[in-house]
Amino acid sequence: MTKDLFQPTHPIPSPRTVDEALAWIRLLRSRRVGVSTFFRLLDEHGTAEAALEALPEVAKAAGVKDYAPCPEHVAEDEYRRAQMAGAKMICWGSPDYPTLLSEIPDPPPFFWAMGDETLLHSPIIALIGARNASSIGTRMARKLANELGEAGFTVISGLARGIDTVAHEAALKTGKTIAVMAGGVDVIYPKENTDLAEDIARDGLRISEMPPGVTPQARHFPRRNRLISGLARAAVVVEAAAKSGSLLTARNALDQGRDVLAIPGHPFDARAYGCNMLIRDGAALVRNAADVIEAIGPAISSTTSDAKTPADDASAAAPQAGTRDKRTLAETAKLHGQILSRLGSCPLAEDQLIRDIGQSHGLGSQQILPELVNLELDGRITRQAGGLLSKPS
Amino acid sequence: MTKDLFQPTHPIPSPRTVDEALAWIRLLRSRRVGVSTFFRLLDEHGTAEAALEALPEVAKAAGVKDYAPCPEHVAEDEYRRAQMAGAKMICWGSPDYPTLLSEIPDPPPFFWAMGDETLLHSPIIALIGARNASSIGTRMARKLANELGEAGFTVISGLARGIDTVAHEAALKTGKTIAVMAGGVDVIYPKENTDLAEDIARDGLRISEMPPGVTPQARHFPRRNRLISGLARAAVVVEAAAKSGSLLTARNALDQGRDVLAIPGHPFDARAYGCNMLIRDGAALVRNAADVIEAIGPAISSTTSDAKTPADDASAAAPQAGTRDKRTLAETAKLHGQILSRLGSCPLAEDQLIRDIGQSHGLGSQQILPELVNLELDGRITRQAGGLLSKPS
Repeated sequence: MTKDLFQPTHPIPSPRTVDEALAWIRLLRSRRVGVSTFFRLLDEHGTAEAALEALPEVAKAAGVKDYAPCPEHVAEDEYRRAQMAGAKMICWGSPDYPTLLSEIPDPPPFFWAMGDETLLHSPIIALIGARNASSIGTRMARKLANELGEAGFTVISGLARGIDTVAHEAALKTGKTIAVMAGGVDVIYPKENTDLAEDIARDGLRISEMPPGVTPQARHFPRRNRLISGLARAAVVVEAAAKSGSLLTARNALDQGRDVLAIPGHPFDARAYGCNMLIRDGAALVRNAADVIEAIGPAISSTTSDAKTPADDASAAAPQAGTRDKRTLAETAKLHGQILSRLGSCPLAEDQLIRDIGQSHGLGSQQILPELVNLELDGRITRQAGGLLSKPS
Repeated sequence: MTKDLFQPTHPIPSPRTVDEALAWIRLLRSRRVGVSTFFRLLDEHGTAEAALEALPEVAKAAGVKDYAPCPEHVAEDEYRRAQMAGAKMICWGSPDYPTLLSEIPDPPPFFWAMGDETLLHSPIIALIGARNASSIGTRMARKLANELGEAGFTVISGLARGIDTVAHEAALKTGKTIAVMAGGVDVIYPKENTDLAEDIARDGLRISEMPPGVTPQARHFPRRNRLISGLARAAVVVEAAAKSGSLLTARNALDQGRDVLAIPGHPFDARAYGCNMLIRDGAALVRNAADVIEAIGPAISSTTSDAKTPADDASAAAPQAGTRDKRTLAETAKLHGQILSRLGSCPLAEDQLIRDIGQSHGLGSQQILPELVNLELDGRITRQAGGLLSKPS
């Protein structure tokens, strides 16, 4: 399914009965229905029930024969299993749904939450790092999580080995923590984190958009990671090697408009590659929790007053206090557009491109260069021999 | 003597005879005559001889009784000793005097040079680091100096133990190097660098503004360091602990309008403090020579065509190609002025100041904050409890 940002034309009411909730589950779990299609169908048909009825016809019109939506018993199983695990369904449009998460391009229509769901509305910071973290990286994650907890922040991470584990452990000591599971909210992975996961469900919060009972697979992790940064005000990258998952997660957080901060390391340390690169590209260099707070502002809870819908306008979806470079992020998106509009299929010299953009928009090469790197990493531009840039063919 | 930037009203001719050279030496070595006074006297009296004649009267008018200029034989001794060491006198206003050095606030009227003086007009990069460097810092300095030498840069440093030593050694292998001596150009310190210093005088260049024969003392080092950064297009800080001399040298280089680049390190490494702080304040993060070259441009020699004088206007003193953030530096100076003009004797809240400056000049806090830190480090603003800023009383 595509990941286009879909803006419905009128508010989407969250489910008020178990039957409505079951219809939401059925619709989202139906074949070929992703986040974007879910919201589009709901917008067109008013309710999930109506969308489910229309679905076979919609599929037929799209050339898909013999289409059947997700069977009712599958949705009922998911709902029952969640009930047994003590998990609550948090639906788009309800006051329980976190505002920041509603602003990402592909917010989950609903997710399962086990534990203290009020944490979804606390000031959240993501800690990002590798499973095979170095000892200095692990120490840093522990110290950061501890200090951020003391400062009133909730630390969010992925319950993986390494950085995630120590971040959750340390945050539980001084504050609160949220674990976003790649599989079902009741499926603990890795097994050695069972005690930790149970502590988190008691004193913190575990969430997942997958059906309970699902075993996590590699392909689930990137989707899961978008929730970690999507729920957070900022993401702190503790350690990230070249081409690592952590670096990818950081790039995705940037795409979501999140502040990305990074702990530097010596260039001779391969695990510092990603963080140093992010800092070169404009991420704030942070050495401790105080630097994080200086960069993003103190811990102030988001309001939970209004149920939001994707139809709310941009001002309603205003960022939280403390995201100082919001303006720059908007400008960055604009700059990306300007760069891409100048690149046709015919390659252009990087110098020339920088000069052109610089002259027409009053920008220096130091502002343009990192964005060229970002676009290249995103696969939106291709670098050829001799410093020539082009759009990918 | 004061260090005010003095702009003479007409060109100062460099000495053309030994007698004129001796008069320059006598004038500069006279009691109470520093760089600024030297240029002011020369401007007022036309020649060093005339200035020397007028000096007792000038001193008397300033309330100094029984003033006598430097005796002739002292100047003759300095000149003779330099001749014996094979050192050449490089005078302000001569084509041999390096352009970049002529642009610092307190350029030496002359200095002694032993070796390949054409290096003064090559593209120069300073490597800055501690005497008690870590092993990783030493390795980095060696690698950087090697790669910068290969890329056509001359590496300048201070012949001290640690980073300086390996930088000179590595640069000699692939390129060229300049050592700026804190004592006389013929006085090698530390002794264990005797072979290296001799190699530098043969294949590179040693310079000093002190009279030959002078043993270096602690108070000489800061003055010497201004020549290292003054001759360089950019300064790369390899390692710098908190409150270290290296950090001070970096700040001075910034004051000279030089690009300052820094190698990051992990925050748990105390020797990374200075570099991480510089990067937070806006210095480019560099991981290798390629990053240095990306930041400042490739190695292109400065022209040696025109004899410059302090009376030359700003356009004649244009920076070399590659100093990309010249505009930003000018803007920074302007921003400093705007900040200081808003601070009276009555303390002002930092937030308020940032908001005021931001609104009237369209700047974000991320642009203003580092400059507040710089001004504080320079002692030009004072930080009080509760985030209040004021001018020092």
